[in-house]
Amino acid sequence: MTDARLASLRAALPGLRLLTDPADLAHYGRDWTRRWTPAPLAIALPGSVEEVQAVVRWANAEGVALVPSGGRTGLSGGAVAANGELVVSLERMHQVLGFDPVDRTLTVQAGIPLQAAQEAARAHGLYYPVDFAARGSCTIGGNIATNAGGIRVVRYGTTRDWIAGLTFVTGSGEVLRLGRALVKDSSGYDLRHLAIASEGTLGIVVEAVLRLTDPPPPTNVMLLALPSFEALMQVFAAFRRRLPLQAFEFFTDIALKHVLAHGAQAPFDELHPFYVVTEFAADEASEAAALAAFEQCVQDGLASDGVIAANEAQAAQLWRLREGITESLAKHVPYKNDVSVRIAAMPAFLAEAQALLAREYPQFEVVWFGHIGDGNLHINILKPEAAAQADFVADCERVTKLLAEVLQRHGGSISAEHGIGLVKKPYLWCTRSPAEIALMRGIKAALDPNGVMNPGKLLD
Amino acid sequence: MTDARLASLRAALPGLRLLTDPADLAHYGRDWTRRWTPAPLAIALPGSVEEVQAVVRWANAEGVALVPSGGRTGLSGGAVAANGELVVSLERMHQVLGFDPVDRTLTVQAGIPLQAAQEAARAHGLYYPVDFAARGSCTIGGNIATNAGGIRVVRYGTTRDWIAGLTFVTGSGEVLRLGRALVKDSSGYDLRHLAIASEGTLGIVVEAVLRLTDPPPPTNVMLLALPSFEALMQVFAAFRRRLPLQAFEFFTDIALKHVLAHGAQAPFDELHPFYVVTEFAADEASEAAALAAFEQCVQDGLASDGVIAANEAQAAQLWRLREGITESLAKHVPYKNDVSVRIAAMPAFLAEAQALLAREYPQFEVVWFGHIGDGNLHINILKPEAAAQADFVADCERVTKLLAEVLQRHGGSISAEHGIGLVKKPYLWCTRSPAEIALMRGIKAALDPNGVMNPGKLLD
Repeated sequence: MTDARLASLRAALPGLRLLTDPADLAHYGRDWTRRWTPAPLAIALPGSVEEVQAVVRWANAEGVALVPSGGRTGLSGGAVAANGELVVSLERMHQVLGFDPVDRTLTVQAGIPLQAAQEAARAHGLYYPVDFAARGSCTIGGNIATNAGGIRVVRYGTTRDWIAGLTFVTGSGEVLRLGRALVKDSSGYDLRHLAIASEGTLGIVVEAVLRLTDPPPPTNVMLLALPSFEALMQVFAAFRRRLPLQAFEFFTDIALKHVLAHGAQAPFDELHPFYVVTEFAADEASEAAALAAFEQCVQDGLASDGVIAANEAQAAQLWRLREGITESLAKHVPYKNDVSVRIAAMPAFLAEAQALLAREYPQFEVVWFGHIGDGNLHINILKPEAAAQADFVADCERVTKLLAEVLQRHGGSISAEHGIGLVKKPYLWCTRSPAEIALMRGIKAALDPNGVMNPGKLLD
Repeated sequence: MTDARLASLRAALPGLRLLTDPADLAHYGRDWTRRWTPAPLAIALPGSVEEVQAVVRWANAEGVALVPSGGRTGLSGGAVAANGELVVSLERMHQVLGFDPVDRTLTVQAGIPLQAAQEAARAHGLYYPVDFAARGSCTIGGNIATNAGGIRVVRYGTTRDWIAGLTFVTGSGEVLRLGRALVKDSSGYDLRHLAIASEGTLGIVVEAVLRLTDPPPPTNVMLLALPSFEALMQVFAAFRRRLPLQAFEFFTDIALKHVLAHGAQAPFDELHPFYVVTEFAADEASEAAALAAFEQCVQDGLASDGVIAANEAQAAQLWRLREGITESLAKHVPYKNDVSVRIAAMPAFLAEAQALLAREYPQFEVVWFGHIGDGNLHINILKPEAAAQADFVADCERVTKLLAEVLQRHGGSISAEHGIGLVKKPYLWCTRSPAEIALMRGIKAALDPNGVMNPGKLLD
């Protein structure tokens, strides 16, 4: 606490909660990536929009970098503080501020965990549809900062589609009320959509108005076994043609192996190379359509086996096979790719990417899974126990550069839903043109003229 | 053709089609507003993205202002060229460039009329849901530039929700391919959403990838007669609670009077102060729910009469009562307000706005109609034949300033779907804060550093 900057912060904001214990610095200074050593200046825990604004103004005056911090479940290093930054954690700002039954909106502070927001919606008989495995830890503010996707995108879209309003403290300390829950507003540039997916580099999301919808009908879950990667997109097409899908997720035999080793139950007696979990309305018409699609796929040699959940417990078991993957891989310190292409470009991209990874990673276990209905693949490379972390990452970075070239050729993205942060920054060129990157810098300069907001993330 | 700038343009782009006839200047120099005298330098009709880019580069070199031009059906003066600008009409770029059945997208040039895009989607068994009365004349590029809304927003959202990709020539002449039809892409700032609703002030939309969806089920149309403005939001709530609505539009007795005088057929024997047109699926469950909602409304004194279309011809007749309004008012040179508030804020706003307009416009006929399900009201003030145009507009501007203050208090927008352009620019302050307007200027400077794009529109 002898740092002159901290003394100045305490003097400027005597009521601000600040943490400086080494354990706190380590805890709040990193996210789910483990590549950087946390080294923040301190952790600020503001309790109000006004306190956040005051911290940002202080940072501008003192030239201190800020790292906004939600649940720190990010996989791209967007919330890492490794260079003496002040972490601004929203964790004390986790309240539901209001519910409007007519507008069907829920107003929340940005630090509320996703799951708490989902539950608040449900308590009012409505539904907030963004969902993924980190729901208990990740926060709405973080979801907005990365335009989080997850397992319901095929039906409901990404976080962007559900943000009716946003209170945003810009890098220069202005408090903006964006969108303001209006259904229609054509009055100039949409700064709300600019704030969404800006990864804390333009400002801090402090409050949000979430749009809610009717709860989905009761659903059923089906697990399919597939003989080949090539069958995947055809099975997706066969199902989508016949019925509305609430989810359509895939994973490989290696992913299954790890989930089973982590305690999940084997779905079939035999092993198959690929699996799909799909969810749809539990009504007669949908179930008949799903069965018809399945039978067609079996006839066409696209599916080898299948099971439909008989009750909720079985449905949860089937979902666990997909949702448990990330956790089951954690101990192998995976290197993660999170790529997307247009759905129509998927077969050609898959063929090329598979060949590339088979050639370049003969020594590593490669786990594929993801949201195939959105054109989004997660590719996890597992570190062999014997390999040194730095060597392993360096090898993976070399291959990611090759993968980025394939993505660029197929018009894909190096980050479908994890964000760019620190991890994907060296590959931004494959997704965004030099002109786009230059414009992003110009826009950052307009919102964060002194460059205090999350410097080094997303853009250099 | 002696203008040195035109000579330089001809020299730089010998193949560019240029119009300089006075009749052409008048035709292309204005939109559906009739307040400004068209006075463009010339009309450029580029035939390709490259030609648009070359025109923008030339404009930067020569310091010539550009006005992008679609169907010129705008109501805010966004496409007016009254100060020696070069109009860049996209009308020659009106082709469908591609259809992808897997991604379910239609790629079009920006000059394609909305209706042609709708028909191209239909020819492939799919549906582009943005729709409004100007469909035959307005273009997709113009729809994107204003984030056009219309009569299906309550079910499908605005243009923004259907743009999977955008080719955009920035004010500095960079060609950006934004979005690229990816479902998921979290790789930095979303410049696509920044281009949408920028009203030609950041660059020119030259191509778009439209997302398509399944055609709606066959629908039926119901017309309701209501005793009061106050009943309107309650009737909406009663219907929305019971069934999914494809449209929910209202208009007043004065609007009906004008449509009937324009040749439409009277729906009821008696006159009523307010009317609603609503559309829903033509299945047994929806029709029963709509009838139940209607009966409930009658019981509660919220509806006085109702009729449900017995066939398509009747449905078209009922829709004509709503869709014919703008055309039926045209000869009265209406002054148009296009405002929105949150749906929940509508009753309080309506009460205040009604009282204000009744007090301030005792001498004018005021026509209310619009998309009440989106919180969007169109308020048309009709010019008495005897009144001079300039005096009439001046009087309306005085009242709009008062209306803007009411809107600001209720968190509304001065432009729900028409854009700001020239007409609403004096009232932007009621919708966007000084900090937001300053940021918009900063963003414009990043995309259009020499200020050649549609100067004076939206921002001063």
